[in-house]
Amino acid sequence: MKKLRKNRRISHVVWLCMGVLLVGAAAAVADEPAPVGEIEAAVEGLQMNMNILWTCIAAFLVFFMQAGFAMVESGFTRAKNAVNIIMKNLMDFSVGSLAFFLVGFGLMFGATNGLFGTTLFGLSGVEPGEDWNWTFLIFQTVFAATAATIVSGAMAERTKFVGYLVYSFFITLLIYPIFGSWAWGSLLDGDGWLEGLGFLDFAGSTVVHSVGGWLALAGAIILGPRLGKYGPDGKPKAILGHNMPLASLGVFILWFGWFGFNPGSTTYADGWIGYIAVTTNLAAAGGAVAATATSWILLKKPDGSMALNGALAGLVSITAPCDGVTPLSAILIGLVGGALVVVSVIFIDRVLKVDDPCGAVSVHGVCGAWGTLSAGLFNMDTGLFYGGGLGQLGVQAVGVLAAFAWAFGLGLVLFWTISKTVGLRVSPEEEMKGLDIGEHGMEAYSGFQIFSNM
Amino acid sequence: MKKLRKNRRISHVVWLCMGVLLVGAAAAVADEPAPVGEIEAAVEGLQMNMNILWTCIAAFLVFFMQAGFAMVESGFTRAKNAVNIIMKNLMDFSVGSLAFFLVGFGLMFGATNGLFGTTLFGLSGVEPGEDWNWTFLIFQTVFAATAATIVSGAMAERTKFVGYLVYSFFITLLIYPIFGSWAWGSLLDGDGWLEGLGFLDFAGSTVVHSVGGWLALAGAIILGPRLGKYGPDGKPKAILGHNMPLASLGVFILWFGWFGFNPGSTTYADGWIGYIAVTTNLAAAGGAVAATATSWILLKKPDGSMALNGALAGLVSITAPCDGVTPLSAILIGLVGGALVVVSVIFIDRVLKVDDPCGAVSVHGVCGAWGTLSAGLFNMDTGLFYGGGLGQLGVQAVGVLAAFAWAFGLGLVLFWTISKTVGLRVSPEEEMKGLDIGEHGMEAYSGFQIFSNM
Amino acid sequence: MKKLRKNRRISHVVWLCMGVLLVGAAAAVADEPAPVGEIEAAVEGLQMNMNILWTCIAAFLVFFMQAGFAMVESGFTRAKNAVNIIMKNLMDFSVGSLAFFLVGFGLMFGATNGLFGTTLFGLSGVEPGEDWNWTFLIFQTVFAATAATIVSGAMAERTKFVGYLVYSFFITLLIYPIFGSWAWGSLLDGDGWLEGLGFLDFAGSTVVHSVGGWLALAGAIILGPRLGKYGPDGKPKAILGHNMPLASLGVFILWFGWFGFNPGSTTYADGWIGYIAVTTNLAAAGGAVAATATSWILLKKPDGSMALNGALAGLVSITAPCDGVTPLSAILIGLVGGALVVVSVIFIDRVLKVDDPCGAVSVHGVCGAWGTLSAGLFNMDTGLFYGGGLGQLGVQAVGVLAAFAWAFGLGLVLFWTISKTVGLRVSPEEEMKGLDIGEHGMEAYSGFQIFSNM
Repeated sequence: MKKLRKNRRISHVVWLCMGVLLVGAAAAVADEPAPVGEIEAAVEGLQMNMNILWTCIAAFLVFFMQAGFAMVESGFTRAKNAVNIIMKNLMDFSVGSLAFFLVGFGLMFGATNGLFGTTLFGLSGVEPGEDWNWTFLIFQTVFAATAATIVSGAMAERTKFVGYLVYSFFITLLIYPIFGSWAWGSLLDGDGWLEGLGFLDFAGSTVVHSVGGWLALAGAIILGPRLGKYGPDGKPKAILGHNMPLASLGVFILWFGWFGFNPGSTTYADGWIGYIAVTTNLAAAGGAVAATATSWILLKKPDGSMALNGALAGLVSITAPCDGVTPLSAILIGLVGGALVVVSVIFIDRVLKVDDPCGAVSVHGVCGAWGTLSAGLFNMDTGLFYGGGLGQLGVQAVGVLAAFAWAFGLGLVLFWTISKTVGLRVSPEEEMKGLDIGEHGMEAYSGFQIFSNM
Repeated sequence: MKKLRKNRRISHVVWLCMGVLLVGAAAAVADEPAPVGEIEAAVEGLQMNMNILWTCIAAFLVFFMQAGFAMVESGFTRAKNAVNIIMKNLMDFSVGSLAFFLVGFGLMFGATNGLFGTTLFGLSGVEPGEDWNWTFLIFQTVFAATAATIVSGAMAERTKFVGYLVYSFFITLLIYPIFGSWAWGSLLDGDGWLEGLGFLDFAGSTVVHSVGGWLALAGAIILGPRLGKYGPDGKPKAILGHNMPLASLGVFILWFGWFGFNPGSTTYADGWIGYIAVTTNLAAAGGAVAATATSWILLKKPDGSMALNGALAGLVSITAPCDGVTPLSAILIGLVGGALVVVSVIFIDRVLKVDDPCGAVSVHGVCGAWGTLSAGLFNMDTGLFYGGGLGQLGVQAVGVLAAFAWAFGLGLVLFWTISKTVGLRVSPEEEMKGLDIGEHGMEAYSGFQIFSNM
Repeated sequence: MKKLRKNRRISHVVWLCMGVLLVGAAAAVADEPAPVGEIEAAVEGLQMNMNILWTCIAAFLVFFMQAGFAMVESGFTRAKNAVNIIMKNLMDFSVGSLAFFLVGFGLMFGATNGLFGTTLFGLSGVEPGEDWNWTFLIFQTVFAATAATIVSGAMAERTKFVGYLVYSFFITLLIYPIFGSWAWGSLLDGDGWLEGLGFLDFAGSTVVHSVGGWLALAGAIILGPRLGKYGPDGKPKAILGHNMPLASLGVFILWFGWFGFNPGSTTYADGWIGYIAVTTNLAAAGGAVAATATSWILLKKPDGSMALNGALAGLVSITAPCDGVTPLSAILIGLVGGALVVVSVIFIDRVLKVDDPCGAVSVHGVCGAWGTLSAGLFNMDTGLFYGGGLGQLGVQAVGVLAAFAWAFGLGLVLFWTISKTVGLRVSPEEEMKGLDIGEHGMEAYSGFQIFSNM
């Protein structure tokens, strides 16, 4: 394997070295000096290879977050629906990878018409091989899939599999990439309009997490709550998750993967990786601590689910500002995120009466918005607390509102359309019996004695 | 730690820098030019360090696939045998690491006698330290262990622990390394014979996966089916796995690890990593989609186990051709693999009546063969559909047949010999009660109420 | 995201390239030679970026070990305490990250007064950005958290959550960093006293693992055994873990993370990564094999828990000597560690009658000591078996004893103080019912039928 490969694949660095050698060849005996241009190119080529290496590894870490989402969501829901939620996570990534490759990537990063990219099948003109664009494609694919998979948590335990597949296809095909093109813009020409305003969202608190979170909100509203979630008096009942160790494993995997998500968004190998890893980790720690404390105060006990969601809340919050704030600001941003997620989960459950089994709307939507706004407060160049005035904060608010309008609005249209065509919700009988049997004809835990309807 | 280390460990790059400095020292005031040779060596040293970094990280990812196999195989089998299958995965890696280090590596990559390497204890002459060979050794060790561990899935729930240990020892000691030397050849001198024919197997669809898969087939045949698997009428009964979330976690871990397996087989840090990551990911996605669709058609519901095996089928299929096919070909290769694995699982179960609890023969053997052949169809240099004629396809078929003859043949001999000596199959009583109690004196899920014989 | 970033973040390598370009600019037409100094700096900058990349990735792998500890410890204990142990793992990392950032890092690596660093809030003078110190901080943070989290396994199933939080705070704030400063010393000025003696502990067999293990011993002693662990006759009863697949997943994750722990302690990207990966892997394999064999002999069956702890024992043992011993020595060190852990677990359980539910004292304390001493035997420069005499072994013994005195002594004081203030142990009623309900008001496995008191 390696040898065959090595014969064919001579990287540009090696070519450059060879260039250096050839240039120097005649003079080699006399050991003549190397010209500046060749050396500069060799250094740039080496740095590029390092950037590719880092960006690919970061992409792999972000891919692994899919396992984290699958474990969190199955752990936080009932045993009778565990196969179903895992199938949704597996298939939204699979369908999304294909859709984003074929269309989404071009809409997001292609030559833009002002509103979205128009280079369909984005890499059609790029040769197979070592071009940087392939690395960028795999990195962006796993980001798109993250936005897609957030939604399954809010729609768990009652959504038809086929309806979910249709949703997955459209978010990675259209909804995510078009919004992304506004904030992160084209590879080929001008900025997106949000980017042009100076919108700061380093790794996607808004672009990935809020877009996913607001789509999740739309889905949960269109679906309605699970059977038995709200009593005749309208009071919410707790429907407990079936596997907290699995859910906690999922959170650890997500935290691990976030070291690809945030530091990886440098797409450049230098000391900023370490800096962003520090702010990311401190915010996650702050989120877990604050959610534990907040739940201890509000719910009388340090709640395990809240602590886990608190870590995620800290991570989502720091995703936008991670590169531009001090470590102390990062701790504060995480602490606020962790407290906020507890309050938001309770508010959505008890006041809005929207049934979000895993807290996805609070974690990704609400904390994504907070994190994006926090860049307007704490960014060391332009933030309110650093003498930057209200300008940056205003731009951040524009981005937050644009994401809500776009994702929630289109989400309502999409899920309503699905519900009127292929169908969005399973029958009450199937919901009682569990989607694993109903949708997939199998049980998650064959052999275990499990209480009925769990 | 770091300081002590840093004092002692001055890499060749730093030496080179020092060389550059020393050469330039007398002239430093006048800032004289650097000679070409020194610079070229410095660039090469940096690229080598980057290759080492990447190859090591890839090896770690491939190591982590052991966790994936353990979770998939325990999830797909019954609770009463979960400790046993995990012990087998742990011990085949451990025994295999020792056997491959001591003997296997030298058989595979040592100076060859035409049929295998003869440098026993491969690195005996290499100094401890920073030589590239150590990096290559750890990378090859985890590959060898992957081949070994594939087998446990097919032989699950009825194999004696001691018999399995003996098998593990011989595959990493002899069977895998000798075949590997034919396809991937010697570090020290000429090519292996398959390599000499122009056989294409970039990351081991045949060398690793088919070899493991055909050994698994031999083992499953010699063992015979689990008690109760086939009724008196010969009809197969489904024996359901006990933990689908665990199995799905395993598949996500394997997919994650495959980003080390395929892109890592470059053993070189440049843009090919990104390209191969794209083809690998698209094929896996295609495999999951096709297996879901195929099971939906054939079994009336989108089956969770089939979808998971479909992702693995796509990954195994793209392993040979991942570096030489277009992304669209990669999707197609994955789609075919995903459909094929469903048909193959059903065929082996119902027609051949070989009891393979996890589908290892279909995933690794059959899809490994398909992936290897697909290089003969879609390779952009030599494939049939790219004007290369039938030559490459013929060579690929030779490699596929050689792997089958070698691994299946030796597998029959090995497992038959084990069955006649230390014993291969547990007693019917132990099988009924479960291997966890019988072989290890413990339960996997102490405290849980589990239906008897599950 | 990327674009904004890229505009602002021009690494020193690029600046250097630009320097090279500018220097060469006027002369570019004539393609004049590059001066030596610029090139040397460019090469050094590239290697530094590579070191940062590697050290960050290693830190992420070590972070992921938190998931490993959480899975091992919850798997090895009862279902009724699974949420609690996971919350402890989550919170010791979170609290520890904050405490180590704010104080611990400065105590460990700040300008030293001879006994500890005095640069409180260690990085207060370091600008946000790409300074290497941020990378070093994240790497050291995950090490500190590893020491902290070891303790939870030994204190499982009976420790009050609030008492554990207090402990977590102090170990990462004070106990670990001060000892660390003795062995790994200051970033700013002289060596720590152990370092000055020539103490060898490459990646922390003593600094991380033994310190954690001896704290765990102190905690387990102050707490006393779990209810029902010792009968009226003083004979120990086995209290079985509830989820062996989860525990085994944890061990695989830890093994995976150890490739960051040991090879990462180079903090330098070159071939030593591969070498240390080889020694680390061989010792782990040896540990698993020896523990399996030892348990087979002593307990009549190859015990799953022992095999898993054996792999960990091999890993802990090789952590100190991994960079300075031959691969064959690494195998031997692992084999001894694996046998030792079985004997030690039985000895602590039956003779000392200290209740350590996960074997943390044996794995981390005892094998950490063995690993540290083994460097005095097998180190290729100074070890007893390499003509180095008894000197190195004596220094190693001093370090081992210092760690025991410091960690066990302070541990007794700390846990005794906690027990007399906020409280260390839950009530017998809560212990019977489970800490998940008592401390957190929730169950780990809602819906599953679980035998009472399990």
